[in-house]
Amino acid sequence: MRTDKMIALISLSLALPALALAKPVIPVPPAKALIAAAMKDERAMTITADLTTDIGPRLAGTEAEARARAWAVERLTKEGFKNVRVEPFTMTAWSRVSESAQILGPHAQRLEVHAPGGSPSTPVGGIEGEVIRFDNMAALRAASPHMLAGKIAFVDDIMPVTKDGSGYGVAVEKRRNCALVASEKGAIGCLVRSAGTSQREVHVGQGRRGEQGNLPVLILANADATQLAAILAKGPTRVHMNIETAQVPEALSGNVIADIRGTERPDEYVVLGCHLDSWDLGTGALDDGIGCGIVTAAVLTAIDVAGPPKRSIRVIWYGAEEVGLLGGNYHAQNLKEKAASYVFAAESDSGDGKIYQAEFGFGPAAAPIQDAIATTLAPLGIERGAGRATGHSDIGPLAPLGVPVMDLNQDASRYFQIHHTPDDIMANVDKASVRQNVAAYSVTIWFAGWTTLDFRAP
Amino acid sequence: MRTDKMIALISLSLALPALALAKPVIPVPPAKALIAAAMKDERAMTITADLTTDIGPRLAGTEAEARARAWAVERLTKEGFKNVRVEPFTMTAWSRVSESAQILGPHAQRLEVHAPGGSPSTPVGGIEGEVIRFDNMAALRAASPHMLAGKIAFVDDIMPVTKDGSGYGVAVEKRRNCALVASEKGAIGCLVRSAGTSQREVHVGQGRRGEQGNLPVLILANADATQLAAILAKGPTRVHMNIETAQVPEALSGNVIADIRGTERPDEYVVLGCHLDSWDLGTGALDDGIGCGIVTAAVLTAIDVAGPPKRSIRVIWYGAEEVGLLGGNYHAQNLKEKAASYVFAAESDSGDGKIYQAEFGFGPAAAPIQDAIATTLAPLGIERGAGRATGHSDIGPLAPLGVPVMDLNQDASRYFQIHHTPDDIMANVDKASVRQNVAAYSVTIWFAGWTTLDFRAP
Repeated sequence: MRTDKMIALISLSLALPALALAKPVIPVPPAKALIAAAMKDERAMTITADLTTDIGPRLAGTEAEARARAWAVERLTKEGFKNVRVEPFTMTAWSRVSESAQILGPHAQRLEVHAPGGSPSTPVGGIEGEVIRFDNMAALRAASPHMLAGKIAFVDDIMPVTKDGSGYGVAVEKRRNCALVASEKGAIGCLVRSAGTSQREVHVGQGRRGEQGNLPVLILANADATQLAAILAKGPTRVHMNIETAQVPEALSGNVIADIRGTERPDEYVVLGCHLDSWDLGTGALDDGIGCGIVTAAVLTAIDVAGPPKRSIRVIWYGAEEVGLLGGNYHAQNLKEKAASYVFAAESDSGDGKIYQAEFGFGPAAAPIQDAIATTLAPLGIERGAGRATGHSDIGPLAPLGVPVMDLNQDASRYFQIHHTPDDIMANVDKASVRQNVAAYSVTIWFAGWTTLDFRAP
Repeated sequence: MRTDKMIALISLSLALPALALAKPVIPVPPAKALIAAAMKDERAMTITADLTTDIGPRLAGTEAEARARAWAVERLTKEGFKNVRVEPFTMTAWSRVSESAQILGPHAQRLEVHAPGGSPSTPVGGIEGEVIRFDNMAALRAASPHMLAGKIAFVDDIMPVTKDGSGYGVAVEKRRNCALVASEKGAIGCLVRSAGTSQREVHVGQGRRGEQGNLPVLILANADATQLAAILAKGPTRVHMNIETAQVPEALSGNVIADIRGTERPDEYVVLGCHLDSWDLGTGALDDGIGCGIVTAAVLTAIDVAGPPKRSIRVIWYGAEEVGLLGGNYHAQNLKEKAASYVFAAESDSGDGKIYQAEFGFGPAAAPIQDAIATTLAPLGIERGAGRATGHSDIGPLAPLGVPVMDLNQDASRYFQIHHTPDDIMANVDKASVRQNVAAYSVTIWFAGWTTLDFRAP
C-alpha cells in the first residue's frame, strides 16, 4: 500500500543501546493526506447537526436516548460501519419535572435554578428555610454538627476558568456531596453555585446517586449565587425550594457499537469512544454529539485516505455517561477476558476545543510508537504531555484491563461556559476546531489500525 | 454664579438677519467640569446595583413593583430629592405561572419558551396542534382564511442587529399581533421567534392586551425557533403548548416623582424620566434600572458642579412602562393643563449603550439652544441627528402636550442581546458607557435647569 513505506525511527536515547536494537519499525503515516482530508471534513458537523436536530436532548434512560440509539444504528450503518448493534443495560433513570426557588422576605425574588441529576423531589409544596452560606465544601465540612438543623446549606465556590478544565473537579464536588455532608448536620436542602462559567444559565450535572443523605438540591446560575450571597450579606434570609423529579427504576440504556472489519487482524480492535446521552437542557452538541462526530469522521477520513484498516476499528457511542459512566463501566465489565482484543482506545468527550496535548498510556516498549505519534501530531499544534493517559470518560474503565489508552486533551477554556447548560447547541460548535480534532484522531488511529504495531508491549 | 458667563452665540444664518437680532443669549455651561465629574460617577451604578439586588425583577402591578416604589421613595429622598411621592394608578396586572412547549412525534423535544405579557392560559393540560410556519407577519396575513383551523401559527422572522434598534419594531410585531391575525384564521395558538438577538434565552415582552383574538402565545428562543423550523422542514410537526398565567384586574402601580426645587423659577420643571418596572426574567438592570441611575446621577452631578438649579428638576421613575406605557400615559393625562410647567423632558430607556446622537423636539425659535447643546455634546462623541425628537418611552406622551423633548439616542447594538431576557442583570452593565450617558444628561439638563432659556419658543 502506498502508505506503508517502512522506516526505522532513529533513537534519541543513547543510554539504552541494547533496547535500541529491539526497537519496532514504525511505518510512516500518510499524515499530510490525512490532515488535508480532515481539514475539509463535513461529516463530524453533519452527524452532530443531524443528531441534535432529529433527537435533541437525550437524557440517560429516557425515551429520547432510546430514539437516539435507533438513530445512531441507522446512521452508522449508512456511513459504512458493519454489525452496528446496541449493547443494552438497565439503569435507574432520573428526570426533572419542575423546579423553582424564591428568596423570601423584603428582597423576595425568583432564582434561576435546576436540580442536579439524582435530586429527590421536595415534599409537595416545597421546603423553606434559612440559608447558611459556605465558601466551599471544606467550610461546610468544618461546620459544627448541628448548626444546619432545619436550614438550607448554600455552597458558593466559583469555578475558575482553566485551559485543562482542572477547575471543574473541585467546583463539581459541591453538586455531588453537599447533600450528604449537609444532611449529616441537619440541613433540609442544598443550594450550590453552578460548576460552570455561564452567567445566567444553570450548569446542571449529576448529583448524588442513591438514597442515603440525598437531600433535595438546586443548582443556582452563577449570577443568582452572587445575588443570593449579596442578599445574605444584608441579613438572615429564607429561601423556598420546590422540586419535582421522577425516577424509573428499570429503564433501558445501551451502547451503540459499530465496526469496520480489519483486513489482516480482524480480531484486534482499535476502539474510539464518545457518548450518545446528554443533559436535558441543551441538545448535547458539544457534550458529546461532536465527540461522536469527531471520532466517526476520523475513521471515515482514515479509510478515505488509507483504504481499509489492517485491524478492526470499533466506534462506541456510549449510553448513560453523564449520570455516572454507566455505559463505559458496563462495556468494560462485559468485555473482561476479551480485553486483550482491544489494542488501543481513546475517547473524544470535551466538546469542540482544539486538541493541544497528547498523552499516552501504552506499554513501556511502545515508547518509539509514542514518539512517532507525537511527531506526527506536532504540526497540528499538539504538544506531548508530561503525564500518563488514563483514558477519557467511558474509555477510562478499559485502562485497568490493560488496554493501551491515549488522551487527546482539548482546550477547555470555553467548554465550561457551554456544556451542561441550555447553550450546549449546534450553533456553538466551532467547525475549524472540530476539523483539527478529526485530523488528530485520524492520524492517531492510523498508527493503531493501519499498522500492526504493538501498543501494549511491556 | 461662576457658571453664568453670558455670551451671545454667533448666528450661522445670514438669511434671516431680522430673527438674528431676536436670538437668545446662551449662557456657557461648565461643560468640562460636568463631564469630568460624570466620568467619575459611581451613583448611576450603585443606585442600579442596589435596586436590582434589593428588589430584583419588578413586573408591573406586582408586589415587587410596589416594593420597588417604596425603595425608590426612600432612596431618592436619601439622595437629596424633595417631596418624593408616588402617583398611583390601577391596572390589570399579568404574571406568568408556568409555560412549556414540546415538539411531538419522532423528533420529540422540549423547546425553550416563555409567554409574552398578556397571554391567556391554555386550557388545563395544554393544547396541541400541527404547526404552520410563516416567514413573517405579512405572510401570516396573506394566508387563506381557514388554513389555520385547529392549528398553531409560527411566525419566524429574525430580528436584525442595528445600532439604532430599528430592527426591533418589525421583529416585535409578531409578538403583539400574531394572536389576533392567527385567531381570525382559526388558529388555536401562536409561536413566535424572540424579538431579540440572544441565542438560547427567550426575549419576552408585552403581547396583546384585551380579550378579543387573544390566543395563547409562546415566544421561542432564537435557537429553538431555528430548531423548530428545521424539524418542520422534515415534515408535518405537532407541538404541545401549556401555559398558565394569572391576571389581577385592579392591581396598583404608580410613578415615583422626586423634585429638586429651583431657586429662580420653582414652578418650571425640567423633567427626566426612566421606568422602575421591569420584565420578570432578569432584574431589569439595563431595562431600565440603569436609566433611572443615569438620569438621577446626572441631576446630582449637575448640582455638585453648578449648585442649585434655577428651575425645578423633576425626576420621574415611571411605573408599568413595559406593559404599555401605562405610567407615562397616566402622568401625561393627569398633567394636562399643567403641561406648560414642563419646560423640557427626556428619558433614558435604552440600557447602557453609549449615546451617539442627539435629536431635538424644541420650538422653532430654540434653534440656537439646540446648536449650543449639540456643540457641548460633541466632545462626548455625540452627533446631531437629522430627525426630530419624539420623546423616549414615558416622555413620549408629553410631546403632544407641547412639552419640548429631547432624545439622547444610545447605541443599541448590544441592547437587544440582553434586554427582556434573563441576562438583563447588573453584571452586564458597562460602567464606562454609563458615565458617558451621565455626562450627556448633566450637560443637557444644565441648559434646561441652570438657565432660564425658552425651549418651547415658537
